[in-house]
This record gives sequence, C-alpha cells and structure tokens, in this order.
Amino acid sequence: MSELKGACIFGQSGGPTAVINASAQGVIETALKSGNITRVLGAAHGIKGVLDDKLIDMSQEDPAELALLKYTPSSALGSCRYKLADPDQDDTDYQRILEIFKKYDVRYFFYNGGNDSMDTCNKISKFMQKSGYECRIMGVPKTIDNDLNGTDHCPGFASAARYIATSCMEVWQDAHVYDTGMITVIEIMGRHAGWLTGAAALATWAGYGPDLIYLPETDFDMDRFIADVKEVYERTGNCMVAVSEGIHYADGTFVSEAKTSATDGFGHAQLGGLAALLAETVKAATGAKVRGIELSLLQRCASHCASKTDVEEAYLAGKTAVEAAVAGTTDRMVAFKCSREDGYTCEMSLEPLDIVANFEKKVPRAWINEAGNGIEQPFIDYVLPLIQGDAEAPRENGLPRFAKLNKNLAK
Amino acid sequence: MSELKGACIFGQSGGPTAVINASAQGVIETALKSGNITRVLGAAHGIKGVLDDKLIDMSQEDPAELALLKYTPSSALGSCRYKLADPDQDDTDYQRILEIFKKYDVRYFFYNGGNDSMDTCNKISKFMQKSGYECRIMGVPKTIDNDLNGTDHCPGFASAARYIATSCMEVWQDAHVYDTGMITVIEIMGRHAGWLTGAAALATWAGYGPDLIYLPETDFDMDRFIADVKEVYERTGNCMVAVSEGIHYADGTFVSEAKTSATDGFGHAQLGGLAALLAETVKAATGAKVRGIELSLLQRCASHCASKTDVEEAYLAGKTAVEAAVAGTTDRMVAFKCSREDGYTCEMSLEPLDIVANFEKKVPRAWINEAGNGIEQPFIDYVLPLIQGDAEAPRENGLPRFAKLNKNLAK
Repeated sequence: MSELKGACIFGQSGGPTAVINASAQGVIETALKSGNITRVLGAAHGIKGVLDDKLIDMSQEDPAELALLKYTPSSALGSCRYKLADPDQDDTDYQRILEIFKKYDVRYFFYNGGNDSMDTCNKISKFMQKSGYECRIMGVPKTIDNDLNGTDHCPGFASAARYIATSCMEVWQDAHVYDTGMITVIEIMGRHAGWLTGAAALATWAGYGPDLIYLPETDFDMDRFIADVKEVYERTGNCMVAVSEGIHYADGTFVSEAKTSATDGFGHAQLGGLAALLAETVKAATGAKVRGIELSLLQRCASHCASKTDVEEAYLAGKTAVEAAVAGTTDRMVAFKCSREDGYTCEMSLEPLDIVANFEKKVPRAWINEAGNGIEQPFIDYVLPLIQGDAEAPRENGLPRFAKLNKNLAK
Repeated sequence: MSELKGACIFGQSGGPTAVINASAQGVIETALKSGNITRVLGAAHGIKGVLDDKLIDMSQEDPAELALLKYTPSSALGSCRYKLADPDQDDTDYQRILEIFKKYDVRYFFYNGGNDSMDTCNKISKFMQKSGYECRIMGVPKTIDNDLNGTDHCPGFASAARYIATSCMEVWQDAHVYDTGMITVIEIMGRHAGWLTGAAALATWAGYGPDLIYLPETDFDMDRFIADVKEVYERTGNCMVAVSEGIHYADGTFVSEAKTSATDGFGHAQLGGLAALLAETVKAATGAKVRGIELSLLQRCASHCASKTDVEEAYLAGKTAVEAAVAGTTDRMVAFKCSREDGYTCEMSLEPLDIVANFEKKVPRAWINEAGNGIEQPFIDYVLPLIQGDAEAPRENGLPRFAKLNKNLAK
C-alpha cells in the first residue's frame, strides 16, 4: 500500500461508556507517535465537531492526562447523536466534511461508536471514495449494548456487565436481610438487545442473583410475569427479578410505554420508568414488600468497577485502527475474534463497515431458557472471560482521578 | 473488675451497610479467642433470633469464611426492625430474653446497629441490671445515616459516602457528554439527617459533582428549587442536583409524599419516588432533558467501593466491644473520637448507652450554605479522611467473593 501523509480526525459518538476513552487514548497515543500522521485532531462532539469546525489539537494535551483517559468514563471529547442524511438525497453535510478534511489535509478519520456511528463512518467512507478524495476511514467499536455485528463483543459492554453483576450480588445480599421477604425488580439498559440484562445472570451463577430474567429477545406477558414472581416468592420467601428496559408485549409495545393496562390497573403517565411500574404491579398482585431499582446511567459510566480486560481491549481497538490505517487499510471497523477453548484469547480483525452498519446483534434464542425468564450456561461462558481483572482506576483523595484535557481548538 | 465467664450473643439490627459484617468479624474473632467467653452465638435476625431461640454456633464456621465477612455487604446473620416495648408497660420480651440468657449462660451481649438498635441494647442493659442478672452489654455502632450521638461518625457511613461521591463524579461525566445540556436529579438516602446527601459535595469538591444539594436539615421550597435549577441550567447549560429522600416542606410534609401540589401539577400516586417527581417537575418547568436517578439500595451495599478506613474502623469497633466487656465494661457503646489536626486519627471510646439511644445527630446548620442548597468546606474536611483507602474486596472469577456461613443452630 502507498504511504499516506496527513492529519487525522478522531471522534466519539453515541452513548458514552466506561471505556470509550480508553479507545480514544489508543487512537491518540498511536497517532501522535506515527510518522505519517502529521497532526492529531479530536472532533468536539463527534461528527458535529467536524461540521462546526471545532477540532481539538491533541498534541497540546499533557501526555500524563491522556494516559488517564483509560480510566475516565464517558466521552472526553464530547459525543453526539447526529444521523447523516442519505448522500444521494442530500449531500450538504458530506460536502462540508470534505471541505474540512481538505482544510486540515485530513487523510485519516477514526470514528468510535455503535450502530449509528458505524453507519455514519460507512457513509463518509463511501462518499470520500466516490469523491476521489484519498482518506483512510476506520471504525472503532463501542457500545454497552454489545449489539454490533461482525465482532465477538463490543468494548464497553464488559465493564457495564461487571458493574451489573456486582451490583446485583450486593443488592441480593441487602434484599435478603430480613426474615419477612422482599421482591426486588432491577431495570437494566438495552432497548433492543438483552446482553446487559443477561449479564445479571452472572450474579445468579456466582450464588446471589436474579431468580428471573427477562430480555427483549422474547415477548413479555404481564400475567405470566406475575405468576413467575409469585411462584418464586411463595416457594422461597424472596424474589429478585432483572428486566431489560426494552421488554415488550407480543404486539411490539414497550412495557414501559403501556400506560394503561388491564393487568396493572394504572391509568396515568409513568414517572419512574419500568422498574417502578413493575414493582407497583407486583406489589398489588402479591402484597409483598417490593422495591424497584433502575441502574440508570450508573451502569454505563462505572469506571470504578471496570473490567481490566475490557479497558485493555478498548485501548487495543483504538491502537489497531490507527496502525491498520497507516499500513493502508480503509473502510473497515476493528473487530474482535475470540476463542474460549483452552482459555480466552482475543485477536483484532478488520471487518467491512458495510456488514457492521445498522445491524443489531441479538442474544441467541438458545442462550435464553425456553420459558423466556432465565439465561442458559452458554451466555455465562460467553461473558465470563470478558469481565476479568480489575482496571484499578486511579484515585486521588479517595475519589476518582479523571483526565483533565485542555481542549485547545486547532487553528 | 471481676472476671466473668460465659457465653456471648452477637446480633445485627436495622438496615444493613457495606461494613456491618466487618464489625461482626471483629466481635466474633475476638470473642472466639477470648478465654472468658465460653461460647460465641450469633442471633439470627437480631433480637428476634434471641426471642425465637435461633442462635447460630459461630465456632462451627470456617475461619477463612469468617475473614471474608470484612468484605461482605448486608447483615450476614440477618437483621430485624423490632422495637422492644417499654419494660414498665410490658416486660414479656425481656423475661424471654432473660430466659434465653440463662439457658445458654449468656454473660456478654453485643448489639450492632443504629438509633433503634442502641435503644434496644440500652433497654436490655437496664433490665438485666434491674433483674440482678450479671451480663455485660455493649453496643457496636452502625448506620449509613451517620446520625448516632456520642461518636464522631458511624461505621457504614463512609463507604456509602465514597460510593455516592464516586457515582456522582461518574454520572457527572456521563451527563455532560452532549452539547445539548441535561439536568440530573440524584436521590440519596437519609430520611432525617443529610450526612449521605452532603457526601455528594465531595464530588463537586473534586471537580465533577452536583451544582445544588438539598438536605433535610433545612425546609424545602419547590418554587425556590425550580428557580435554583433554572438559574444554573441557563447559566451553564447543565445542572446536577443531589437531594435527600427526606427533604420536606416547612410544614414537615415530605416532598416525596406530597401527591398533589400546585407546583408540580400531579394528582396521582407517585410510583418512582422523589427523583422521578422532581425530574418531572423540573422538566415541566424548563423543557430540558432531565433524568432522575435514585441510588436506592445500591448505595448502602456497595462493598466493591468500600472505604478501607471504614472497614478497618468497623472491625475495630467490634473488637473493642468484646475487649472492653471482657475487661469489665458494660452498658456502653463503642464510639469514635477523632482528630483532623495534623492528619486524621481515630480512637475508640466507650459512651453510655443512655446518651446514644434515640437521639438523631443532624448535619450542623453552619455546614450547609445560607441558601440551603449547598455544602460548606467544614463538611468536606469532616468526611474526606473517612473515605480514604480501597478496601480491596476479594473477587473470584471477576465477581465478588462473599463469606459463606453454615449457620448451624446452637443446641
């Protein structure tokens, strides 16, 4: 492949994770060291920063602070949820991106995100090819939802899974402290794919976790749910339930959006979300003490509980993207090829952006039990290696020490 | 003091914490080694276990598992919320306790809990004195609420404070990721005292935390609250708020219980608790993107984020109770006397149960800002030393490894 010299732009997009900044560090450190990359620019708030010409000069950052990105949750450069138009319909944004690329002589573009972000990355890649502007474009995977196609798993998922399993184990202990019994309903992120909610099964596997787990991969039935909970509660005196925020009825309606139902008997707008709705429903049906807990943003930014495996893989994904691009690759996303025979191994691979963009990978039906209220062993075998190791996020005065960036805009 | 030989009973009471089992370990290990304590019995579910004659023979536990109690959240022996009657009105329970004490030749009683538990401990102590039954009775402090009188702080508080501050810092990062702004309302435990909610100020002190903090020590005013939030949001484009679950209007009504109000405009039962109510109210008032987050049980059982200082002090409190009792002390609670001059020191002291029972220690008004929406530096100086050090809770397969007790009942 021909040698290509020029600037690079790196951007972060979509919902943040505990380790997306580890990928940022992988990209930035590797790019800063590369002889071919003449300038390293960070897009403020993803592709919006490119469109708005808000590009951060990463060479002006303190290397010690950049190193702390590995342990800093959320998206340090800022994120966005901006969907590019179909270029055949409207190429305004693409022309603007090309203008900015030319302005800074950008020859490398690295975009870090999930499904929508890989779609953005793919569209830009195809547009640049069509325009005849030489630029190597690479996707770096990221999503706690773990639903990207073409990769064994996604950076960010494992740390969220580790936090979820750890928290479920701790809450289980807390919820079993009185001899009077209690039902706990834990709401976990994942609108269309149940990977995160499934991770609650790790807690059960370890001895203290949900009795019942409901993923969006199967249809939810409120009567069956209540019967399930009653059965466990009457048999054991306690019940812990994990539900995905995306559970839905057979007609596709999200349970969280069903404001009125014959089963729950409520006729007013929900305030507290799904956990509160289900808790109230179960309370009415059983008379038991019930608590609904929503893990909310906590689950996706808990760098204090991050998986070392996840942090290191996230870094490597960023590093690999730069190395591959400099070596001549373009139009690909870094992906993980893993083996779980004879111990866990994870190798980087490069997958075409086409096969990644806009496809949501679901939990295989065979990894969910037949009743649709529990998780099978293959899921555990899949997740367990990913949550290993303590990332040892540094603390100062007993509190997290996050990276502090100057974010000086490039001229 | 005379030497006293006999069995001991240890019980845990009230809401669990991340470190109450560290105190249990301190009591049990020290008692098992004591020449004077002939038998170590654990009460299943606190004083209810004594009344029901459900006593666990602690000598039958594996010492390696007992050592893991230090890192196991919640109450390993089970807890209760059982209030003893005034013995002058009804001494049935006390007579039963005396019967059990005589049955097992119990000469030492250690009770680990908060305000109500110290009241129980005090009443039993006074009854035994009156009955002429020689028994040394010691309270071991515990409560995440940190509201016990006679002690600098309470075991359990610091670990919850560390978790709250850490989580606020992480959520702050997450809530500042888009350029579109967001308001976050975080609900923290503490019905009558604002110590835990105040701990959110540690996050702000460290650079990323709530802009506004409301404790139950001051009266809450919904209009002023909305104005506060609007001011911050309009000025900075974001706003993070920490509220105690116990905030109340000037007439004493809890905000969480006010179902209808002219300000929030809702006329139906709350499902999602205070955070959801305030989030909805703020959303209606500002039109901003708003998220309510309730830390719920997570904050009191997060042993994975425990303060090493807290764990060690909790252990020492248990150990000291046994040593002091064997040496002749009775009718006291172990307390902490601390200094923050020239570094932090913490010494054990023994305070009369009378002065501890049934008194709730509040956050001093001077440690809260005049407007009642923020925290002053003396609070930070008070809490900071307590959250230091990583307890390094052991993990197995990447997941917490909690103590597994046999809980064989004594014959």
